[in-house]
Amino acid sequence: MKVVIDAMGGDKAPYEIIKGAVDAARELNVDLILVGKQEIIQEELKKHNIDGLNIEVVNATEIIENNESPTMAIRRKKDSSLVVAFKLLKEGKADALVSAGSTGAILAGGIFLLGRINGIDRAALTPVIPGKNGPFVIVDAGANADCKPNNLLQFALMGEVYANKVLGINNPKVALANIGAEEEKGNELTKQSYGILKENIKGFVGNIEGRDIPNGDVQVVVCDGFTGNMILKVYEGVAATIFDILKSEIMSSTMTKIGGMLLKPVFKKFKRKFDYTEYGGAILLGVEGLVIKAHGSSNAKAFKNAIRQAKNAFDGKILQDIKEELNRINRE
Amino acid sequence: MKVVIDAMGGDKAPYEIIKGAVDAARELNVDLILVGKQEIIQEELKKHNIDGLNIEVVNATEIIENNESPTMAIRRKKDSSLVVAFKLLKEGKADALVSAGSTGAILAGGIFLLGRINGIDRAALTPVIPGKNGPFVIVDAGANADCKPNNLLQFALMGEVYANKVLGINNPKVALANIGAEEEKGNELTKQSYGILKENIKGFVGNIEGRDIPNGDVQVVVCDGFTGNMILKVYEGVAATIFDILKSEIMSSTMTKIGGMLLKPVFKKFKRKFDYTEYGGAILLGVEGLVIKAHGSSNAKAFKNAIRQAKNAFDGKILQDIKEELNRINRE
Repeated sequence: MKVVIDAMGGDKAPYEIIKGAVDAARELNVDLILVGKQEIIQEELKKHNIDGLNIEVVNATEIIENNESPTMAIRRKKDSSLVVAFKLLKEGKADALVSAGSTGAILAGGIFLLGRINGIDRAALTPVIPGKNGPFVIVDAGANADCKPNNLLQFALMGEVYANKVLGINNPKVALANIGAEEEKGNELTKQSYGILKENIKGFVGNIEGRDIPNGDVQVVVCDGFTGNMILKVYEGVAATIFDILKSEIMSSTMTKIGGMLLKPVFKKFKRKFDYTEYGGAILLGVEGLVIKAHGSSNAKAFKNAIRQAKNAFDGKILQDIKEELNRINRE
Repeated sequence: MKVVIDAMGGDKAPYEIIKGAVDAARELNVDLILVGKQEIIQEELKKHNIDGLNIEVVNATEIIENNESPTMAIRRKKDSSLVVAFKLLKEGKADALVSAGSTGAILAGGIFLLGRINGIDRAALTPVIPGKNGPFVIVDAGANADCKPNNLLQFALMGEVYANKVLGINNPKVALANIGAEEEKGNELTKQSYGILKENIKGFVGNIEGRDIPNGDVQVVVCDGFTGNMILKVYEGVAATIFDILKSEIMSSTMTKIGGMLLKPVFKKFKRKFDYTEYGGAILLGVEGLVIKAHGSSNAKAFKNAIRQAKNAFDGKILQDIKEELNRINRE
């Protein structure tokens, strides 16, 4: 398998990105194409042992920044590391693309440069989130702020394939993010979507309320991108706030400092459990190719795991599965 | 001031409700009407010292349960504690109503039995949430799953008055819950609402993303009821999950148990900071009367604080202020 890497995307590019890519090449036995400013990449590669690894470097002189208009940037910066990477993927020179760059640009690139899978109306950003009892995905987490029931059906279908093939969950549970447990609860979108999901999605278990999402007992949380993004951000915000406060309180006296020291293994274990870097990033589901958006602040480990995620999606043949599921639904 | 109490509503009714009400009568110097099964209430009152307190008991033979259809229940159970309490409020025999009963029934009662304030199209459920740097409100947190920009404007206006008069914040900051900081971000509703809020709301500071909500730097978070309810529930869910996990990890070894003991003051302080019972409950803004929905699981302290909230809203003359603000906006 060959993965094309946007070597210039991400807050910690190029150092951590290239380190993570080299680590992945060795550990996961994948071939790489690193795209970006050739001199910089070559210089970075010298810092690592790349003996026996299959790493190609492709020059790209431009970089897409986070503050640019994504669609504009994708159209105009034709020699950016991201656009060149997308072209290589599109031409079949790589099997997957991984970037820690601008989410908007990766979305725009996926939709305009790769195109959507035939039968999919909207592509969805699908992050893997650590839950109490295991990881889960949110589809969509921000690509489509306004959605129709049919979009949610397609999100559910793609999320189910992903949870099964990449997270390795047999018969993943799929639920509709909603503000009540009963079928008739919710807004117009969720009310209209419930029946369609019930009819078409094998693992559909009904509605899931916000309070139950962190448990991770449901592996696919389906919603419009506005709701999904809100869930994701509140999730991160509350967790960060709690640890901020605990930390500053622990530092407030000698007694509590000692207590904090004794609890180090607890906090460490907790952090590991809720460490997004373990899961890589968010996959862009619904486009004609495997595209992984690694977290913007990815370090080498997070980026390596994003490449692992790409490999699992490739090995799991998820694109093929999604197409087969689409055919099944359309036949029924 | 006289507060009418639904003595039969809530998971811990009647004991904790009546205890909280009696405590409030003494501490806050308010008069009470307790509505519910007379014999039960009289029996409960014997457990407390009510010398010198002005407490009236009004008999009501029915109880509205959480699992009933709210609108149906309000219409049919005319002798329920909640409906009788609403009637007393409507007739001017009390200045505010407090209930820990079914949220849906309280909403339906407020809208159908009291009616909306002239000029307000939708009533909004407005809970007070503890944030890192202070409390904030979410308007709406679940009364209206689908909203229009004009609803959000009215929510913002009412929330601003409430934060000012009841939370006691001078010039509260008001923000639109959204999935991006820039004006043009969001779904159709937020995109259409931004300009209207900017034009009409003094304290409007733009969009707030989910990640920043827990900080409490913005005191009024404006959104449709679907989004607000989702934010609220994810907030509660993540916090509960984190403490569940920490607790079980702390109990896993002697060392960590000792650490946990030393950190007791930290956890206690934290719990107090994030204790919803400190703030009472959610006010129903936009109806012709002061209605407080106390948390369903309210104990005496939480219920007492809900009565305090009613008193602050009464003393702050928020109904009058809301009407004046509505006039101001309509004049402009």
